Amino acid sequence: MATPFERRVSTVQTTLDAVEGDVVVLSPSPNLTYLTGFEESPSERLFVLVVPRRGDPTFVVPTMYEEQLPRRYDSRVWDDADDPLEVLATCLRDLGVTSTSGDSEGTNSPGPSTDAVGDAPRILLDDSMWATFVLDVQSLVPSGDFGLASAVLGPARISKDDLELETLRQAGKLADRVCLEIRERSEEFVGTSEANLAAEIDRLLVEYGGRAPSFTTIVASGPNGARPHHHSGDRIIEPGDPVVLDFGAFVEADIDEGSAAYPGDQTRTLVLEGDPPESYREIHEVVHEAQNAAVEAIEPGVTAGEIDRTARSIIEEAGYGEAFLHRTGHGVGLEVHEPPYIVDGNDRELEPGMVFSVEPGIYLDGEFGVRIEDLVIVTDDGFERLNDTPRDWDCRDW
Amino acid sequence: MATPFERRVSTVQTTLDAVEGDVVVLSPSPNLTYLTGFEESPSERLFVLVVPRRGDPTFVVPTMYEEQLPRRYDSRVWDDADDPLEVLATCLRDLGVTSTSGDSEGTNSPGPSTDAVGDAPRILLDDSMWATFVLDVQSLVPSGDFGLASAVLGPARISKDDLELETLRQAGKLADRVCLEIRERSEEFVGTSEANLAAEIDRLLVEYGGRAPSFTTIVASGPNGARPHHHSGDRIIEPGDPVVLDFGAFVEADIDEGSAAYPGDQTRTLVLEGDPPESYREIHEVVHEAQNAAVEAIEPGVTAGEIDRTARSIIEEAGYGEAFLHRTGHGVGLEVHEPPYIVDGNDRELEPGMVFSVEPGIYLDGEFGVRIEDLVIVTDDGFERLNDTPRDWDCRDW
Repeated sequence: MATPFERRVSTVQTTLDAVEGDVVVLSPSPNLTYLTGFEESPSERLFVLVVPRRGDPTFVVPTMYEEQLPRRYDSRVWDDADDPLEVLATCLRDLGVTSTSGDSEGTNSPGPSTDAVGDAPRILLDDSMWATFVLDVQSLVPSGDFGLASAVLGPARISKDDLELETLRQAGKLADRVCLEIRERSEEFVGTSEANLAAEIDRLLVEYGGRAPSFTTIVASGPNGARPHHHSGDRIIEPGDPVVLDFGAFVEADIDEGSAAYPGDQTRTLVLEGDPPESYREIHEVVHEAQNAAVEAIEPGVTAGEIDRTARSIIEEAGYGEAFLHRTGHGVGLEVHEPPYIVDGNDRELEPGMVFSVEPGIYLDGEFGVRIEDLVIVTDDGFERLNDTPRDWDCRDW
Repeated sequence: MATPFERRVSTVQTTLDAVEGDVVVLSPSPNLTYLTGFEESPSERLFVLVVPRRGDPTFVVPTMYEEQLPRRYDSRVWDDADDPLEVLATCLRDLGVTSTSGDSEGTNSPGPSTDAVGDAPRILLDDSMWATFVLDVQSLVPSGDFGLASAVLGPARISKDDLELETLRQAGKLADRVCLEIRERSEEFVGTSEANLAAEIDRLLVEYGGRAPSFTTIVASGPNGARPHHHSGDRIIEPGDPVVLDFGAFVEADIDEGSAAYPGDQTRTLVLEGDPPESYREIHEVVHEAQNAAVEAIEPGVTAGEIDRTARSIIEEAGYGEAFLHRTGHGVGLEVHEPPYIVDGNDRELEPGMVFSVEPGIYLDGEFGVRIEDLVIVTDDGFERLNDTPRDWDCRDW
């Protein structure tokens, strides 16, 4: 029986055929993990997976990885004393991507390009492949017609299978558990720094089963909340401060062969103790209403742009349109930010199995910010929220 | 007085002039941090710093970053509803990189390329810029001659200034402190998993002042040690197991304006309790000798390749040449792996201010691995080690 990874490779090759692509070249990335269950970070060493339109994918990797690769794949290794580009050039020739005329070997043979099989080979590069390797591949195939691997990986990855959904549900529960604990212990963090609260959140995320935080945990208090991507710092949290808490952790998928992890990501804006600025109550209510309306609008066939418009129009009507600085949400899967993007003008229709954030916000420079975020699955007839802790701001109500 | 960042920009522009480059385009990366003191991770949103040969650098960033950028730089922002490529195209035109004929605006106007100022503009892309943005920039400047930003950033970054050296010394001391504590408490970790020991190391690195581990901490016990980049797992550490411990943490530089952090990175191979396999004693001694000889060989004017040869020849003479799977070391700075690479054939001469690892190893499949690593500064007349915990393996001697 085919493994999940064999099925995914086969799906991608079918799509590659449909778009008339010749080969996909992946770097260490979520795309590579999706196809192989192998996780690695990009580095300065050439490490690629070459997926031809037909036949077996081949790794081109440093010698040291040979033992760690999934054994079901072919691999070509290079030693620190080798020229990795020569190894890659040979691999591309053997897979029929470039011709065997020799003109495409190495970077020192410009001149008339005779590397195309037929005309210009269509080569899809991993979206996050580093420029150094992009220019390398372009030098090996000077006549190549280059595009992005997301053209064939995207359609597969955007709709999550049951294993992925189950892992994302667990990641949602983990973030919720930590959020509830912070609400419960809220007064303990007043008078301490943002960084201290962020560290405690990170500790709890791992203690309760996360592999690691999904991203740098955001604790943005008082005026710092007006920066959507604030880095938690030394500022001491005062009574009455609105505090934006945006966090989650990666949770391991339960797979036998290989490994993969899926992130949680939720935001609450809380007042840990005391009374917030007067304007805060109304503004929090606007964001809460916008978030709720956008989630309720989710069902198959609605476009991503319409979800954004639903949230944005409520915030605009309240007079804060200019203060909603970002899109309403982003897809979540092997990456914390991936398609579908919930942004004005995105005509992509929602489909069952898509998972994304809904996170409108209002940011008032010098005053405070408010953001409320949940992850949501598109179901056959609507939506399923992955987060369900209270969305209000008053920890005293807890 | 010029800030360190202004001085760095000026140095890079002088080099750009010397190599006849027209512009450097940086992504969120160590290069960008080096020039601006701004730290951010790459994401799917277009975020670049455009550094022309003359005049001020300009950021092209999503709206939400406007408030966070260093105020001394120009910036052009794009909103989630804008086409970021149009904003970048306008910026490149205004900086004189492309012509104002309009042919280079957007991706929908191929045809004869009239984008060059003079001939083909020479554009240096950040080495780790994602392929998606590389192809974007190439589409805006179809006649562009593309190279890597390291051509102009590399010469500046390879030689560390006093502030960088001081931070790297602190990172060395931090890793040493944790290493000594693990030696002291060695028996406590026998019978527990690699992952448990790795988690304790990570906790100590942060408790003692590190920002975060420099990389995924490696605890590779028994046969797992034969994989140089093993991911710490469930394996229980047994008495007599050689255990490769490779770790370090980023330490914040003491700078007023902006932020930056520099990593520690050291390796010891310890036997936490009991007696190791008989062959281990001799093999550890070979690696120890190779490491020491390579460090002692460091001085200005010697090539990086010679340092590698020094370590490698000792291991080869002992009959383990095939089992030394990787280069002898790598430079360390804003990145854990950066030039100079201490690899056979690298003719780069060592210069004062360079900082790199010296980390020979022997890896015996199915048995164990041994690696010993210190970071070293090249000084005016020799070297300075940044790590000085014992290099022997026997924790009972401690």
